[in-house]
Amino acid sequence: MVTEDEAMCRAIALAARGLGTTSPNPVVGCLLLGPDGEVVGEGFHAYAGGPHAEIVALAQAGERARGGTCVVTLEPCNHTGRTGPCSDALIAAGVRRVVIAVDDPTPVAAGGAARLRAAGIHVATGVRRQEAEQGNIAWLTAVRRSRPYVTWKFAATLDGRSAAADGTSQWISSAESRADVHVLRSTVDAIVVGVGTVVADDPQLTVRDLRDGTLAIKQPLRVVVDSSGRTPENARVRDAAASTWIVTLAAAGTGPDGRVDLNTLLTGLYARGVRNVLLEGGPTLAGAFLSAGLVDRVIGYIAPKLLGDGRAALVDAGVGTIADALELDFTDIAQIGGDLRFTATLRQKPSDHPPLKET
Amino acid sequence: MVTEDEAMCRAIALAARGLGTTSPNPVVGCLLLGPDGEVVGEGFHAYAGGPHAEIVALAQAGERARGGTCVVTLEPCNHTGRTGPCSDALIAAGVRRVVIAVDDPTPVAAGGAARLRAAGIHVATGVRRQEAEQGNIAWLTAVRRSRPYVTWKFAATLDGRSAAADGTSQWISSAESRADVHVLRSTVDAIVVGVGTVVADDPQLTVRDLRDGTLAIKQPLRVVVDSSGRTPENARVRDAAASTWIVTLAAAGTGPDGRVDLNTLLTGLYARGVRNVLLEGGPTLAGAFLSAGLVDRVIGYIAPKLLGDGRAALVDAGVGTIADALELDFTDIAQIGGDLRFTATLRQKPSDHPPLKET
Ligand SMILES: NC(=O)c1ccc[n+]([C@@H]2O[C@H](COP(=O)([O-])OP(=O)(O)OC[C@H]3O[C@@H](n4cnc5c(N)ncnc54)[C@H](OP(=O)(O)O)[C@@H]3O)[C@@H](O)[C@H]2O)c1
Ligand SMILES: NC(=O)c1ccc[n+]([C@@H]2O[C@H](COP(=O)([O-])OP(=O)(O)OC[C@H]3O[C@@H](n4cnc5c(N)ncnc54)[C@H](OP(=O)(O)O)[C@@H]3O)[C@@H](O)[C@H]2O)c1
Repeated sequence: MVTEDEAMCRAIALAARGLGTTSPNPVVGCLLLGPDGEVVGEGFHAYAGGPHAEIVALAQAGERARGGTCVVTLEPCNHTGRTGPCSDALIAAGVRRVVIAVDDPTPVAAGGAARLRAAGIHVATGVRRQEAEQGNIAWLTAVRRSRPYVTWKFAATLDGRSAAADGTSQWISSAESRADVHVLRSTVDAIVVGVGTVVADDPQLTVRDLRDGTLAIKQPLRVVVDSSGRTPENARVRDAAASTWIVTLAAAGTGPDGRVDLNTLLTGLYARGVRNVLLEGGPTLAGAFLSAGLVDRVIGYIAPKLLGDGRAALVDAGVGTIADALELDFTDIAQIGGDLRFTATLRQKPSDHPPLKET
Repeated sequence: MVTEDEAMCRAIALAARGLGTTSPNPVVGCLLLGPDGEVVGEGFHAYAGGPHAEIVALAQAGERARGGTCVVTLEPCNHTGRTGPCSDALIAAGVRRVVIAVDDPTPVAAGGAARLRAAGIHVATGVRRQEAEQGNIAWLTAVRRSRPYVTWKFAATLDGRSAAADGTSQWISSAESRADVHVLRSTVDAIVVGVGTVVADDPQLTVRDLRDGTLAIKQPLRVVVDSSGRTPENARVRDAAASTWIVTLAAAGTGPDGRVDLNTLLTGLYARGVRNVLLEGGPTLAGAFLSAGLVDRVIGYIAPKLLGDGRAALVDAGVGTIADALELDFTDIAQIGGDLRFTATLRQKPSDHPPLKET
C-alpha cells in the first residue's frame, strides 16, 4: 500500500529512465494502484513510437486496475498519434481516479483530463508538479519556445581557463567528470559544437564507455556549426558511430553577423524532433548562443587548477558592462571526482518576455 | 559529565574565537574537567600578551581542577614568555591527566608534555589532531615555513572574469559574499594588495560592518605592494582606520623581476608578528605570489553571472602548459547568498619539498 504522493515520486523516477530516447515526446512515468492502494502496474515511456507509460502500466495490471487509481507524471493524452489515446484506455480499464502532476501544454495532446472527467473519473492535478516539471524541463521548455532546450556545458579551471597558454587542454577535468559528461550526453537528442572545436580537438562526440570505448546503442545527433563547410573530410564527427549534421550557411541561412543563423538552426533541429540539445562549445559558439538568448542552462565542470593564462571558457557573449552581465541561479552544486560541477539556469531578461497586453 | 572527545571538540571551537587577535601566538582552547568529568573551567587564548587558555580555565576552576583532566588543543607551553609556563601551572593545580590535540612545533615553547610527564601526570596526545590542526593551520604553517600563511581571495564570474569589458566590476559578488569577506578579514593579521588595485579601486581594506560602516576594534595591517611608491597620497588605505605598510623596493628589496621581492616581504611580515595573510589581489600580484609558490589556500567567490569578456581573475602565474597547471584540492564548497564559495588548498609540488637525505 503506497500513498499517492509516494506513487508520484516513483512515477517521476520511472519517467527519467526515458531521458534521451523519447523525443519528440516527453518523458512520462505511471503507476497504477488497485482499489486497495497496492501497486498493480508501472511503466514509463521508453522511446518515441513505443507504448505510452499508461499503456505499459495497464498491460501489467490487467483486471486489477479496475476501480483503482492511475498516478501519472503528465496529463494522459487525448489524441491518436502512433498509439491510441491513453485517456480512452484508462476509461476502458475501469480506473476510478487519475492523479496528474503536470498538464500537457500541447494543443494536440491536451484535453485528456477533460475527457476523463467527462467519463465520470475523478481527476486531481498538480501533485508534485514542480519535481515532475523539472524531470521534463527540456521537453516542456522546448514545446513552450518551439525550439530545443539548450544546455551549455564547459570545463574550466578555477580561473576560468579552458586551455593553457600553449593551447593544451587535455585533460583539464578529471576522468570522473568526463564520464559524467557521457551520462549527460546520453540524456540529449543532439550535441552541438562549433567548427573551431572540431578543427582544434577532433572530438568524436559520441556516448560511450570511457574504459573500453563501447558505443551506447542510442547516439545523439552530432551537429557542427560550420558556415563555410570547413569540417575536415576525415574528422571523427563524420565517422559511422552516429548521425551528423554539418550546418552550413546553405543549410540554415545566414544570421545577422554573417555566420550560421542560430535561431534557424534550432528551429531546424526542432523540426527534426530534437527537444534537448547539449552545446559543448567552444567559447565562440557558446558566446553567440548566449548573446542570442538561446541558452537555458549551464553546466560547468570546474577543476581545482589554476593557469593564469590561456583561452577563456567563454568569449563574446555580447556583454560590455557589469550591469549587463548574464544572470543565472545555481540549481545544483556537486563534487565529481576532484572537480566541482555546478548547474545553473539562465534568468529570463525582462525583455525576453514582452509584457502581456491587457485585454 | 562530558567525554574527553566532546571536551576537545568544545576546546577547538573555543580556540577559534581567538582567530585574528593572537598572532604571533597560536589560537588555543582549553577545558578543565573535575575528577567526576564535569566541566569546571574553560578558556581560550584571546590576544597576544593576554593569559593562555590553560590559565584562564585554571582561574575559573580553582580548587575543582585538583585530580581532574585538562583538555587542550595545543601542547601546554614550557617557557616563560609574557606569561609563566602553563605546564607548571597545571602541575601546581594538581591536574592528574592532560589530553592534547597537537604537539607544539616551536623549539622554545615545546617540551610541555615531557615536563608534565616528568611530574607524574598522565599525558595523551593526538586526540582530534586533524581538526585542531585545521583550526590552527595558519599559525602551524607559518611556523613551519617561517613566513605567514597566505590565503588568496578573489571574486569572479562563472567564466572567471573579475571585471567587465569596460572595467566595471562593482558588484560582481553578492552583498552576502562581501559580508563574508569582512568575516574572513577579521581572522587575519594583514591584508595584502598590489598597487594596481589601489589605483583602480581605492579600497579601504578594513574590517567593518557593511550596513553602517562601523569599524571593528582590531584591524589587520594593510599592506600595499608598490615598487616605486605610487600609492596616491589621498588613497583610502592611508586613512587612520588601520595601520598601513606601503612596501616599496627600498623597504623590501628587489626581486628577480625587478619588482618587490615577495619572499622578503613575507619574511618582513613574519618578523612583525604576522602569521596569517589575506591576499586580495589583483590578478597580477596574485599571479606573482602563485608563481613563487607563496600561496597556501585559495578562496573564490563565484557569482552566477557570465561576462564573456573583461579582465581575468588571475594572470601570469608562471604556467605555460596544462601539465604544469597549479593543482589544488577543494576543502569546502558553500553557497553564500546567491554565490558559490569554494576553498581549496594548493598541493605541494614535489620540488617544494626536497626529498629528505637518507642518514
Ligand atoms: N573547455 C571546454 O569546455 C571546451 C569545449 C569546447 C571547445 N573548447 C576549446 O575551444 C577551442 C575552440 O573554440 P573556438 O571558440 O575557437 O571555436 P568554436 O566556438 O568551437 O567554433 C566557432 C566557429 O563556429 C562557426 N560558427 C558558425 N556560425 C556561428 C555563429 N552563429 N556564431 C559563432 N560561431 C559560428 C564559426 O566559424 P565559421 O565562421 O567558419 O563557421 C566560428 O569561428 C578549442 O581550443 C577547444 O579545445 C573547450
Ligand atoms: N575580483 C577580484 O577579486 C579583484 C581583487 C582585486 C583587484 N581586482 C581588480 O584587479 C585590477 C587591478 O589588478 P592589477 O593586476 O592591475 O594590479 P595588482 O595585482 O593589484 O597590482 C599589481 C602591481 O603590483 C606591483 N608589484 C610590486 N611588486 C610586485 C611583484 N613582485 N609582483 C607583482 N606585482 C608587483 C606592480 O606595480 P609596480 O611595479 O608599480 O610596483 C604591479 O603592477 C583592478 O581592476 C581591480 O578591480 C579584482
